[in-house]
This record gives sequence, structure tokens and C-alpha cells, in this order.
Amino acid sequence: MIYLDNAATTFKKPQNVIDAINYALASYSNSGRGAYRAALDSGRMVYETRVKIAKFFGSKDPSRVIFTSNATESLNIVLFGIFKAGDHVISTVTEHNSVLRPLYKLESGLGIDLDFVGIDACGRLKYDEFKKYIRPNTKAIVVNHISNVTGEIADLEYISKFAKTNNIYLIVDASQSAGNIDIDMSKMSIDILCFTGHKSLFGPGGTGGIVINRDIYIDSFKVGGSGVQSFNKEQPKEYPTRLEAGTLNIMGIAGLGAGIDFINEVGIRNIHKKEMYLLKRLYDGIKSVKGISFYMDCNSIENEPENIRHGGILSINLDCIPSGELADILGYDYDIAIRAGAHCAPLVHRAFETVEDGIARFSFSYFNTEEEIDATIKAIKEIVEDK
Amino acid sequence: MIYLDNAATTFKKPQNVIDAINYALASYSNSGRGAYRAALDSGRMVYETRVKIAKFFGSKDPSRVIFTSNATESLNIVLFGIFKAGDHVISTVTEHNSVLRPLYKLESGLGIDLDFVGIDACGRLKYDEFKKYIRPNTKAIVVNHISNVTGEIADLEYISKFAKTNNIYLIVDASQSAGNIDIDMSKMSIDILCFTGHKSLFGPGGTGGIVINRDIYIDSFKVGGSGVQSFNKEQPKEYPTRLEAGTLNIMGIAGLGAGIDFINEVGIRNIHKKEMYLLKRLYDGIKSVKGISFYMDCNSIENEPENIRHGGILSINLDCIPSGELADILGYDYDIAIRAGAHCAPLVHRAFETVEDGIARFSFSYFNTEEEIDATIKAIKEIVEDK
Repeated sequence: MIYLDNAATTFKKPQNVIDAINYALASYSNSGRGAYRAALDSGRMVYETRVKIAKFFGSKDPSRVIFTSNATESLNIVLFGIFKAGDHVISTVTEHNSVLRPLYKLESGLGIDLDFVGIDACGRLKYDEFKKYIRPNTKAIVVNHISNVTGEIADLEYISKFAKTNNIYLIVDASQSAGNIDIDMSKMSIDILCFTGHKSLFGPGGTGGIVINRDIYIDSFKVGGSGVQSFNKEQPKEYPTRLEAGTLNIMGIAGLGAGIDFINEVGIRNIHKKEMYLLKRLYDGIKSVKGISFYMDCNSIENEPENIRHGGILSINLDCIPSGELADILGYDYDIAIRAGAHCAPLVHRAFETVEDGIARFSFSYFNTEEEIDATIKAIKEIVEDK
Repeated sequence: MIYLDNAATTFKKPQNVIDAINYALASYSNSGRGAYRAALDSGRMVYETRVKIAKFFGSKDPSRVIFTSNATESLNIVLFGIFKAGDHVISTVTEHNSVLRPLYKLESGLGIDLDFVGIDACGRLKYDEFKKYIRPNTKAIVVNHISNVTGEIADLEYISKFAKTNNIYLIVDASQSAGNIDIDMSKMSIDILCFTGHKSLFGPGGTGGIVINRDIYIDSFKVGGSGVQSFNKEQPKEYPTRLEAGTLNIMGIAGLGAGIDFINEVGIRNIHKKEMYLLKRLYDGIKSVKGISFYMDCNSIENEPENIRHGGILSINLDCIPSGELADILGYDYDIAIRAGAHCAPLVHRAFETVEDGIARFSFSYFNTEEEIDATIKAIKEIVEDK
């Protein structure tokens, strides 16, 4: 199988991740609940992974690294834990349903107000709209770092400056960017980062997290056993326990930590560079295909191939075939895995007028090869010729 | 290490669970999101595991098997998703904080009313109190099946009959019972079962679930990507998607399914029988130790050793040493892993007046041996003699 659906989940995991999972299965019990060796070792590993994650994302306090089961949970915890009735939130049309649905639920249930910054034909945010939407009751900007549909990287320098100037929080959905491009929350003035473990961080499913780099009170979402303050009727107030009820996914956290080790060893810039090389190779190979549309800034790829500001995602449509059918043929006839249709990001599809046919998304990982890209180019050309 | 903290998490997992996790890592991508082989295989495995779980728990509809990250999440989803302002809930003092804290939060935040059925000196529920607490606005009974402190099995036959007669829901926390004793939701008239995967079901951490065996509307808790109905502003209404937002823990679900296969192969009654044999052996070995207290019905162990109605948990205290110190010495000097202190079940400790010193809990799994029990007996006796 040629796997080009890495934006959904990275399929091939580094060997050290697999080893870490198996080591955890053989060595760690529950953390934070017992005082014997396997429990203490487990607790130590969990703490060390918090430290590793805080450092990886340029955050100061490992106790404000919260483990969750995926980015959706991270975003639910943060969004339901911060906003109160009457708050206003600026978000963008590039958001995934993991941001949109919590925001809509807060809008209808709690009465928060929402505005969404639009995108241009290349999928770039219309940055001047942030100014248009700011209000006295605006509490935060919620924005994804890399769009899961277009691969466009949001200009967080601009947005964080804007947020700082207006004294509002910046909450970043790093589902597609964590492990793909450098993130330094302190330098970039990101207040809260929500990430998933199983995508570019190479961790297993069931992992994700929140990194909080500012003094922010986030209400508990799930409440329950905490291993401490058993007689407190409420979830303990202290981070990370405030946002972590119940038994942690020890095996998953061990795997996630190993994924970050792998990235640190290879170098995140080398990873991104390789993905951009593959993206450019695919782009060059298919750009002349009849009736092809891209959802990105093609000028920048053409003119600055060494400096593409993009995630590892190339999205297209072909006049001659709907995206779903393209994906089916690639899957069944060529064993090439891509994702098509709607990508849980409805406002992007509305903006691009692809609600009906969706978009065909090719997404890369460090483990993809030139040969795989070349085989994909050949397959696309054959499919178009057959139509 | 002699591991007797299986009520926290089963440390030794069956080989087929480890194999299933590794197979999943090598073979499955995301489920329900792509149309290529690794995604379809993944989706098929997830569905088959739903079927397996529904069957295992005697429930009818696999689409009402919801995957969560642990029992705490299951309970949060159910409790926050069912109760409305003005509802009354009957629960028990044996509950874990994973039940108590959501209920307290609903009490203070939403205005539900709570009553807790008490226990006697053996840890047995005072069943006649259910009648005392029933009110016209009582909506449900929330009860754990096996106490994580005492190992006492609740008489669900009595409770479900009572719930049925009064036309209220029965919600069961099966954290300690799932995989330990037979559960047939249909026969036992259990409406909703919340379970964790990493305890007696032998699955990995980060797994758990809800089984719904009645036509009940549970509000979405987390909302987000669902892979279907992308343009719906709300989480889809259909089970299981209604309660499953974001990417599932595929590797974990594969491991959980394998854990259930293992139990089915060995036979759940054989598993329980073995644990009861080990429990009786430990009990017999230490019952004459000076100053020992048990938190269970010792008469039944003495007189009906073949028919012990108990989970795989033996809890004690010793006059000469606080439970925490006992656990420390067992851990450090003997490499025996038990749990002591408070067990996230504050009302049990209040009832037993063990708030200060806690309780020492020995909990078994199918993989424990006679030799391990004998070594534990020897260790306890030595520790007491040294005092």
C-alpha cells in the first residue's frame, strides 16, 4: 500500500514507538495510584513525557501539559472550559468540526457569539478580517495552525500579535502542525495548544494533549478519580489533575513520547523539508493534468520551491471525476490510500464550493518515498486518460 | 514482582492482546474516514469489536456500544448526558469518585438531588434503603457492580427489579466486574453499563466503553469530527457517533477485543473461580494475624468457600501498621505490589472510619499464582512480627 492519508493518521510508526509501546505493556502499571516499582516507573515516564512535550512546544511548565485521548477531546476541554455566556470568539472558516461543533454548541447552549475569518481562493486566511470582528467582549481567537484540507499554514505571528494587542487568548489547534513544523509557544505567544498524538507526532491512537502556557483557568470537563484529594467533592484544582480524570493511557503516552524522540532525532525541519520535497514532486507531476484544480498558493510552489510555507497536504480536484471516485479507484486498483469527500471542515468546502464533490487530499509523512509519489502520479494520469 | 494491584489495572496482559496491539499498529489506519484497505479493515475490526462487546455483555444492539478512553469518561458521558435540573438520583456510598464527582457537579451546577444508600460493617449495601429514597422525580439508580474497595458484589437482581418496578433507569459502573463476573444486561435488566478496558477485560490503557441496552437519549458530551454528516452543525444524532467524537483509539480497541477473546476462551467463570481460590488462600493465610480487620463478609468465606460472592479484591487493615506503610514495605522489601490509602471512594472510607489510615487492598487476576499468594502471606506475617 502507498499510504498518502497521513493527515488522518500516520500509518507507519517509527520502530522506537512500537518498541516503547511494547516496553510499556511489559513494564508499567497505573501511574499516580500505587507506590510500588511498576507504578512509580509509570508515573516517572508520564512526568518525563510531560517535560518532553513542554520542551518540544516551547512551553514553560510541564504540569500544564495535559494528556487527552485526541485533539477533539483537547479542544472540547479547552473550549467548554474557558468560555462563559456573553463571550465572543473569533475563529476561521478553515476550522475542523472538532472546533466548530464545540463552538456551535456553546453558541446555542450558552449564548456565546461567533465570527469566522474567511479565506481567499488559495485557502489563505483574510487576515484583515480579524480587525473587523474584534469586539469588547472578544475573549479568544481559536485557529488551526495548518488546515487539514488545504495544508495552508496560518500566519500565527500576525494572529498572535493581534491577540496580544487586543488582550485576548490565542488557542491553536495544532492537529496537523504538531510534529510537522516548529512550534514554540513562548516565542509565538500561543496561550493554549491542542494537539493529537497519532498524526505527525507518530504516537499511537488514543493520545493527544493540551499545553497551557499562560495563567488561565480552564474548568474541569471530565471529573472523577484523581489519585489525590480523594475526599474533595470536586476535581482537584491543580494542573494537570484538574483536566485529567481517570486512568491515563500509559501505553499510549509512552508511544507518544517515543514519537517525539524520533522527531527530535531526525529534526523537525528535515521532516518538513522531506514532505515539502514530496509535495513539490507530486505537484510537478500532476500540475499539467487536464482539468486539475489545486487548493493552495501555486505561485509560491512554482517560484519559491525551496521555501514552501505549507503542511504536508496537497489537495486537488479533477474535472473528469468526483474526488470520492478518484479515491476509490486509487484505493482499489492501485492500492494508494488517500482521503476524499468532505473533510470534517464544512466551511472550507463552502468557501471552495466543493460541498457536493468534496476534495481529494494527498498527505505525506517522513516515511513516504519518491517512488511512491511517482507511482501516484502515474496512477492519476492513467485514471484521467481512462475517463 | 508479585503484582496484586489488578483492581487498578491488570499488569500482565494475555499474549493475544499484545499480538493484537502489534497487528493493529502494522495493519490498521483510521476507521470510518477513508475508503482504502487499511481504513476499511480498521472500520471492520472496530465494528466486530462492538459486536463482540454487545454479545459479551448480553446486549442487543452493537451500534449502542460506545468506545471511550476509560470508565471515568464513560460515566461522565452518561451522567452528564442523561440528567436534567430537578432530577433525583439514588446512588450508593460504595461509589468511586468517577461516579461521585460527576454527581456532585450535577448537584451543584444543575440542581439534581442525590441520595446514597449506605453499607453495613461487611460492606454490603443496605438494600432496604432504596425504598426509603425513592421519589416521584427519581430518574435513575447509579451503582457500581463490584466495590473497588471491598470487592463486594452488589445484588443487581434486587436493584434492577426495584428500578423496573419504579420505572427508573439502572446505570451500572462495571469497572471492577467487567471481565471478572458474568454480566448479561438483558437478563439482568441493566439499562446502561459503563466499563473500562484495562482492568479485568485485559485490554490496554485508554480503552473503555458504554453499552446501552434500552432506548435512552444521552446528550453528546464531546462533539467534533464524526466522519459522517460533515455539514451538520451538531454531532450526528445516531449511536454510536452521537457519543464518539474524534479519532478512535484503534490499537486500543483491537487490544480490548483480544482481551475479550481471551476471557471467552478461558471462560469467565473459570477466571472468577481462580481468583476466588487465590482470595480464599490469602484470607486463610492471614486471618489469624494479630490485629487484622477484613472489609467483607467473613462468614461467607468461612462457610461457603465454594460459592464466594465476591470480586477479586481482599481488603484489610492491621492494628500495628497503617495501610500506606504496609504497602511501602511490601513494595520496597518484597517487591509485592498492592494499593493502600484512600481508593478514590471517600464514602466507603467514611463508613468504615478509615479516612485517616486508608485500607490495604490486594487484588487478583487470572495470572496470579498460589506461590505468589504464599509469598504474600509470608511477607505480611514477617512485617507484623517485626512491628
